[in-house]
Amino acid sequence: MVQEGFRGYASAEAKAPLEPFEYVPQPLGDNDVEVRVTHNGLCHTDLHMRDNEWGISSFPLCPGHEVVGVVVAKGANVGDELSIGARVGLGWIRDSCGHCDSCVIGQENICSKGYTGTIVGHHGGFQDRVRLPSKFAFKIPDALDSVSAAPLMCAGATIFTPLKTYVTRPGMKVGVIGIGGLGHLALQFARAMGCEVTAFSTTPSKEKEARAFGAHDFALLNDTKFNNTQDLLLNTSPYDMDWSALLNVLKLDGKLCLLGIPATTLTIPIIPVVFHQKSIVGSIVAGRKFMREMLEFAALHQIKPQVETMPLEKVNEAMDRVAKNEARYRVVLVSEEN
Amino acid sequence: MVQEGFRGYASAEAKAPLEPFEYVPQPLGDNDVEVRVTHNGLCHTDLHMRDNEWGISSFPLCPGHEVVGVVVAKGANVGDELSIGARVGLGWIRDSCGHCDSCVIGQENICSKGYTGTIVGHHGGFQDRVRLPSKFAFKIPDALDSVSAAPLMCAGATIFTPLKTYVTRPGMKVGVIGIGGLGHLALQFARAMGCEVTAFSTTPSKEKEARAFGAHDFALLNDTKFNNTQDLLLNTSPYDMDWSALLNVLKLDGKLCLLGIPATTLTIPIIPVVFHQKSIVGSIVAGRKFMREMLEFAALHQIKPQVETMPLEKVNEAMDRVAKNEARYRVVLVSEEN
Repeated sequence: MVQEGFRGYASAEAKAPLEPFEYVPQPLGDNDVEVRVTHNGLCHTDLHMRDNEWGISSFPLCPGHEVVGVVVAKGANVGDELSIGARVGLGWIRDSCGHCDSCVIGQENICSKGYTGTIVGHHGGFQDRVRLPSKFAFKIPDALDSVSAAPLMCAGATIFTPLKTYVTRPGMKVGVIGIGGLGHLALQFARAMGCEVTAFSTTPSKEKEARAFGAHDFALLNDTKFNNTQDLLLNTSPYDMDWSALLNVLKLDGKLCLLGIPATTLTIPIIPVVFHQKSIVGSIVAGRKFMREMLEFAALHQIKPQVETMPLEKVNEAMDRVAKNEARYRVVLVSEEN
Repeated sequence: MVQEGFRGYASAEAKAPLEPFEYVPQPLGDNDVEVRVTHNGLCHTDLHMRDNEWGISSFPLCPGHEVVGVVVAKGANVGDELSIGARVGLGWIRDSCGHCDSCVIGQENICSKGYTGTIVGHHGGFQDRVRLPSKFAFKIPDALDSVSAAPLMCAGATIFTPLKTYVTRPGMKVGVIGIGGLGHLALQFARAMGCEVTAFSTTPSKEKEARAFGAHDFALLNDTKFNNTQDLLLNTSPYDMDWSALLNVLKLDGKLCLLGIPATTLTIPIIPVVFHQKSIVGSIVAGRKFMREMLEFAALHQIKPQVETMPLEKVNEAMDRVAKNEARYRVVLVSEEN
């Protein structure tokens, strides 16, 4: 029954461009919702998955994990918490065990059984509809438009979790390394949290925009003038770094937080860790607790990504822009029916 | 004026045995106290300093930085906080800048100017008397005998600071790696803090004593059965380790805390840091805040090191025992006049 099928865009094999595809989905589960997709943020991870760079992709691979849409159907067990017509967002996680020590406190991003990824063994948001467990469909606050909300679902979550965890007092000095899709949101969130914010970049031309996003100061990454200045450094860069030099940028008792996998291993000097009480920490996306708090916080402070919108059917062109680092700072793909 | 001199034991040059020596001290400063020494814990660091392994020793080198004694003189500015006759302890730090952000909150152990070490450019406790700034002479609670108090001044401080910092709730699962001078105190402190305590060792024969010190469980260091079990791992071992294997011992969101310098650099896998939110942290001795709290806590819970006492004049024999790892678990050198 072709009219029952879901239609979207998928790669048939690793590194292949996305093409229109259609399939008959599994029946709607009792705990699932069906969401008509209206918007998708485009994240570099979608490209990694298309190219099977982590060896976890299954094909056809339909990317999209910064999804906003409208609930159009509910399973039998889904109650008042989500109504038909509700505007919801989906992120990197579509399900988790629900029972481990992390899941019971809403930190499903470190589920001890390993969460299920939205586009790992499942089709993501680059289609007309998507079905997923209702508990990972997050209501979008009215104060956030859908274009702005989409990139918050992964990039915003990735930034918010470590800030919420490690910003323990107002006025903390927070440095953001890398002013891109994640970094430009980090500047805004950290500023709204009352931090003193410095943007660290290798690109001098980004200073003006970094300041517009909320940075009080701008530093070139190799400028030792900024040594011993930061309480918290969020590293959003995907590239390997001089970790020893980054530890020097931290104040005593400061924390270097890794938000990605820029290398397989990290070689760090021990002296600053022991004698200067500097820590190496990390963070990945967000569980349900911080996902909800992130959306509320973004709505309250009107934190919005700077985006370029393109129609979903131009997804391959959009992916090329992201691959070339040309997107400023996030592409949002808008579905046809909007 | 020979009768005015201080008499003690010092090495004339790197790696030389200690010999009796006498010298005329600097005049007592207005902010100083003079302490008649009664007891000295012997720490492996005293051997490192004697042998100039860190290149910071000056000779003649008089070790001793786990000192207990009695105040016998006070400078003009020293007030009621320390009386003549008061029993006090001195640790690794004898002074700090007093003005940096760390010093003003009693965390002089991470003084941004660098604190002054008790035996770095100064003579330590292996003498009849010692003069130091009064602010780093800590009153010993009545409930702690002097023999027990001495090793607390460095070993106890080194253990207490990270436990006080990272034990954020009762019942946390704390693993102590290395059951020696530091480790056997860590087991006691962690147990008294309400933690679930596991001793990690390479020496099966230490199990019985580890349990007597407070460990609920005992693990051989390479036993993967203990993977994913600990919230906090305190590494007291001076040896290089398989850091990746240690991260496996941590639960999700757990912390590996380094208390020494077992290597120059640390090579750690990034995946557990980012995806499993595991942190690498470190700690060194204690500032005034935690030094006071440590002594109060030890007195309240009657935490005492297990020691062997020897007379101070047998200091070289004692150092040989420590060098051979034969001390169980700390040697305390008792001065003649006691």
